[in-house]
Amino acid sequence: MTHVNAWAVNAAGGALERFEYDLGPIGTDDVDIEVDHCGVCHSDVSMIDNEWGMSQYPLVPGHEVVGRVAAVGDGVTHLSVGDRVGLGWQSGYCMHCAQCMSGHHNTCGSAASTIIGRHGGFADKVRAQSASVIPLPEGLAAADAGPLFCGGITVFNPMDLHDLKPTDRVAVIGIGGLGHIAIQFLRAWGCDVTAFTSSEGKAQEARDLGAHHVINSRDPAAIQAAAGRFDLIISTVNVALDWNAYINALSPRGRLHFVGAVAEPLPVGLFPLLFGERSISASPAGPPAMIARMLDFAARHEIAPVTEHFPMSRVNEALDRLRSGDARYRVVLDRD
Amino acid sequence: MTHVNAWAVNAAGGALERFEYDLGPIGTDDVDIEVDHCGVCHSDVSMIDNEWGMSQYPLVPGHEVVGRVAAVGDGVTHLSVGDRVGLGWQSGYCMHCAQCMSGHHNTCGSAASTIIGRHGGFADKVRAQSASVIPLPEGLAAADAGPLFCGGITVFNPMDLHDLKPTDRVAVIGIGGLGHIAIQFLRAWGCDVTAFTSSEGKAQEARDLGAHHVINSRDPAAIQAAAGRFDLIISTVNVALDWNAYINALSPRGRLHFVGAVAEPLPVGLFPLLFGERSISASPAGPPAMIARMLDFAARHEIAPVTEHFPMSRVNEALDRLRSGDARYRVVLDRD
Repeated sequence: MTHVNAWAVNAAGGALERFEYDLGPIGTDDVDIEVDHCGVCHSDVSMIDNEWGMSQYPLVPGHEVVGRVAAVGDGVTHLSVGDRVGLGWQSGYCMHCAQCMSGHHNTCGSAASTIIGRHGGFADKVRAQSASVIPLPEGLAAADAGPLFCGGITVFNPMDLHDLKPTDRVAVIGIGGLGHIAIQFLRAWGCDVTAFTSSEGKAQEARDLGAHHVINSRDPAAIQAAAGRFDLIISTVNVALDWNAYINALSPRGRLHFVGAVAEPLPVGLFPLLFGERSISASPAGPPAMIARMLDFAARHEIAPVTEHFPMSRVNEALDRLRSGDARYRVVLDRD
Repeated sequence: MTHVNAWAVNAAGGALERFEYDLGPIGTDDVDIEVDHCGVCHSDVSMIDNEWGMSQYPLVPGHEVVGRVAAVGDGVTHLSVGDRVGLGWQSGYCMHCAQCMSGHHNTCGSAASTIIGRHGGFADKVRAQSASVIPLPEGLAAADAGPLFCGGITVFNPMDLHDLKPTDRVAVIGIGGLGHIAIQFLRAWGCDVTAFTSSEGKAQEARDLGAHHVINSRDPAAIQAAAGRFDLIISTVNVALDWNAYINALSPRGRLHFVGAVAEPLPVGLFPLLFGERSISASPAGPPAMIARMLDFAARHEIAPVTEHFPMSRVNEALDRLRSGDARYRVVLDRD
């Protein structure tokens, strides 16, 4: 029996309250993680608010976990007590479907989400299937690694999945929790990097993070002037923009890729896709092997989320800060 | 001076009439083709009707040309008088932009269209830049090769461009002038091939052409039953369908690819793209090197458009047949 001291919300939109539960006996293939840090992601807020209609209460948020292995099931051979590890949006896979067997665990139809039907990382401990628990490489600072496990892998996925080349010109729409990590990855990947931001104040910050160019996303003429320029545009925003203007900014065979969740249907005109052989696509967070590649890449290039830290006991204050939209750029809770 | 006996339309939607013109002295890099056969494409009808607002009259349609080289400019070294050749939608390129220099001539911003600002293949002769004139491989029958140069390359392009694998499951929406060639290519490529057709009568024909499976596109339950099945769906139709139903039929990382020109914006929901890492894309006809690869593939696998032939002097009758929608499957004009 593993006793957990957690923070839970009991109804949509409510405040987080202390919540204790028992994990029960550890399963053969399970790992218990002693949580040292846990990032706060916009999707935690969406789940707290039941924005997607799939929240179950009491709900313990937290899916950007970094900590140390506290216990392993007797079938776990590749992780040991004390190992520095992390855990992201998914905490288990069927391990046998075509997706899992092909390394695409993130599209496994039976994948378990860390905060749906189980309890997440706003706690002193969290349990997950061993395949979803990824060791931190040497040289990666634990304190700021949490956001890599959801925000980081979400922007890294399209780069890896679609074989981005270092010679490509890439733009990022939205310089926030996701976008500020994307810029760092793209710069280290060797690409020509452009930031689209509606915030004057973020223009210099985007440059400091690695962007070669910054375009004001509220200036249609500036977007028009970039016609035909980008091999890849990664949209990290969750509001509807003039997508056809961005498609026009794609080079032939360019791709407009969504990692931000936009609810409205995309009213996409076919002809600009057709004559330019362009694509539109989207993706969620990535599979475990890709997370491991990303961590290794981040460590080698000294890439880290820019964070604001709160002790976990001040979790409600941390959530307010995230909801304000003013956080630079990612909020992390630390073990008290 | 090269004198041409052609068929032209003088106003939108008009009948074709005899039209004579002189080509002027042949350019250094030009090739004159003696037209033996010319396919009639739906885009000829669209241009005759000025459906896309870019027709110039008198307009000589015809961009699925097969014939023999009649003359070459003094800079042309890779083609000789008498060579069997073909010509498609494009008849010239800048040859120096990044697109041309990368083998993607079809997305050259200065590409010339065979029937825009110049006269096409409903004629005894047609002139084009040598790079756009492709030799027919041995073993490819000239009489039915014309439709490969537009309809054929249009469906072949997504297979080649997006590295389709013989292990992939592929569906074709619409079994007509484009779709009936797509099925043959996909079968020869080694794929599992499904035809979506609204026509009961075409189900057996699709099987005869190589489809392993046929699904009634008017049966939403049948489309729903194919959820998650296809790595690639090629849409050849030019009407709006329930695209989200087809996106649902894509496997993870599957692609819905449009080669049919749909005027209405695509009201695409983002979440099925995101959770399935799926893509939407489109493409026009392909570049010269790809056309050559396609012809070689067609010759090796004995792939040929299914055609109905008319002498060129009965071009108006041929157009009526195409407009009726009853042609099986592609109409070709032969030299009188």
